[in-house]
Amino acid sequence: MPELRKDPVIGRWVIISTERGRRPSDFLDVIEENKDSISPFSPNNEHMTPPEIYAIRPPGSAPNTPGWTLRVVPNKYPALKVKGQLDRRGEGIYDMINGIGAHEVIIETPDKAKDLGDLEPAAVTDVLRVFKERMLALKKDARLKYVMIFKNKGPAAGATLKHAHSQLIATPIIPKRVLEEIEGAQKYFAIKERCIFCDIISQELKDNIRVVHENKHFIALSPFAARSPFETWILPRGHASHYETIDDASLDSLAAIMKTLLQKLNVALEKPAYNFVIHTAPIQEEASEVYHWHIELLPKLTRIAGFEWGSGFYINPTSPEEAARYLKEIVI
Amino acid sequence: MPELRKDPVIGRWVIISTERGRRPSDFLDVIEENKDSISPFSPNNEHMTPPEIYAIRPPGSAPNTPGWTLRVVPNKYPALKVKGQLDRRGEGIYDMINGIGAHEVIIETPDKAKDLGDLEPAAVTDVLRVFKERMLALKKDARLKYVMIFKNKGPAAGATLKHAHSQLIATPIIPKRVLEEIEGAQKYFAIKERCIFCDIISQELKDNIRVVHENKHFIALSPFAARSPFETWILPRGHASHYETIDDASLDSLAAIMKTLLQKLNVALEKPAYNFVIHTAPIQEEASEVYHWHIELLPKLTRIAGFEWGSGFYINPTSPEEAARYLKEIVI
Repeated sequence: MPELRKDPVIGRWVIISTERGRRPSDFLDVIEENKDSISPFSPNNEHMTPPEIYAIRPPGSAPNTPGWTLRVVPNKYPALKVKGQLDRRGEGIYDMINGIGAHEVIIETPDKAKDLGDLEPAAVTDVLRVFKERMLALKKDARLKYVMIFKNKGPAAGATLKHAHSQLIATPIIPKRVLEEIEGAQKYFAIKERCIFCDIISQELKDNIRVVHENKHFIALSPFAARSPFETWILPRGHASHYETIDDASLDSLAAIMKTLLQKLNVALEKPAYNFVIHTAPIQEEASEVYHWHIELLPKLTRIAGFEWGSGFYINPTSPEEAARYLKEIVI
Repeated sequence: MPELRKDPVIGRWVIISTERGRRPSDFLDVIEENKDSISPFSPNNEHMTPPEIYAIRPPGSAPNTPGWTLRVVPNKYPALKVKGQLDRRGEGIYDMINGIGAHEVIIETPDKAKDLGDLEPAAVTDVLRVFKERMLALKKDARLKYVMIFKNKGPAAGATLKHAHSQLIATPIIPKRVLEEIEGAQKYFAIKERCIFCDIISQELKDNIRVVHENKHFIALSPFAARSPFETWILPRGHASHYETIDDASLDSLAAIMKTLLQKLNVALEKPAYNFVIHTAPIQEEASEVYHWHIELLPKLTRIAGFEWGSGFYINPTSPEEAARYLKEIVI
């Protein structure tokens, strides 16, 4: 059983997941570049993944057979396990919980040569809609307090497989980073009685020096305190705390801006490795005036070195204004 | 002038340092592997660095000439600059400060083939003593609130040069990560009236399952909530909040445990890339009962992927108990 452990000083949770079956020596080559010839996520290789949880496939076709356009499967090497008791406990000054949770993989396309930004708009919308549907499904499990959806693209960003996919991890605790964001937003709300993200959006639209792209429902911008070159956030214009409340019109709009942004980054940075994470309010909590869901995307260009590890702060050699101007000018 | 900018939501500071002279396309090959043949840190290449700030060299020898065993020089591409006014200011909801500070490089040895752990014990002591001396020197500049000392070894850990060196960055703000640690320690002290790090040390010595090595003044251990495989902390047994108060006997003892730890890691992980950071109290503050300085060392084996970026929490596939047992058994 994996274990969630809390650092007693700063309250950071880590997952100690030793059942992934690695020994110390296995870390010397961490990221196995998988052979292009065999993708466990390709059609006809459905037996290479655990049985599917969800799929978009022709009516009447059997699960775990080809024909699908999108599949959701449990991670073959899950960091957390669905079955078991939470069993919160202490060991002297230390706190831990059993590693209960979900770890799923969203296979975004049957075509192993394409990334998310290369798909047809309707297929991108499907991926974003499935994020919502998996969140709503996992919300029913009251043990789960948070659902994090993220994508690692490219070995430099931590991906172990090339075939386009995103991941979902549902945890029985709310991660520290999420709590910090909510607390920051609460402090601002306490003074201003306004959502800080709404205020960021209105200042950015007025200043118009960090906006990368906008459409009916969304805005993509280089954040004022970007951690790394070309960090970009996508925020809904209208206030909403929970990703899973997104409606169909907004899903189309989000797919369009996501596709445009990924294509701009591909041109600007020659198909960079990247991570994105959906920042959303805790799944079991009510809609809130304070928090505003959004997506943070970070191309993986600089490495995180000692200074950043230790300080929690970052050296970024490209100003967000420069990055935004550069991305804005690329015509897709 | 570089700029320090604060994220308005979570309070994270970043350094936007565009004068390092890179364009977007320059990031495609981030870490230039330097040619082994020319090290700007080698003897006779003293002209390739800015003039030295400090050196250990034979009496009577001229600065910036060969003969030294250790040199401290300003970083050629500093993230922060020494000259100028702090000039705190706002821009709507955003806060920023001029990027005032110091960025120095400690060249640990004239021998480009050796790492810190390969040096003679007295030479390791010299490096650790110079850390202290630079802290004491920078403390005199009241603009500087924090001095962070860290080492990046190997390209995977963010090092751009192979020749053994560590770095120092002094900042006009206290980094968020440091504040979090101090706040966590304060919360514990408020309840227990004891230092949390002292309590960690005493529990670890009693449990004896995560201790890697110990000597007269120091203990090396795998932390209970280790973020990544073989993360190791070195803590002084005796309570002290500020690294720069270390005495000569303790410096020898710290050099001994640091050398042993680096050698064990080199055997266990075949000379891994690693980062270490000295966690110490803010330089301008008085000695405190609450905080306890220590060194956190992280071999760079797994990559930080999307999940970790977004959540502030980590998946570690090697338990700290397993890592400690493995390192403990290696005889140096």
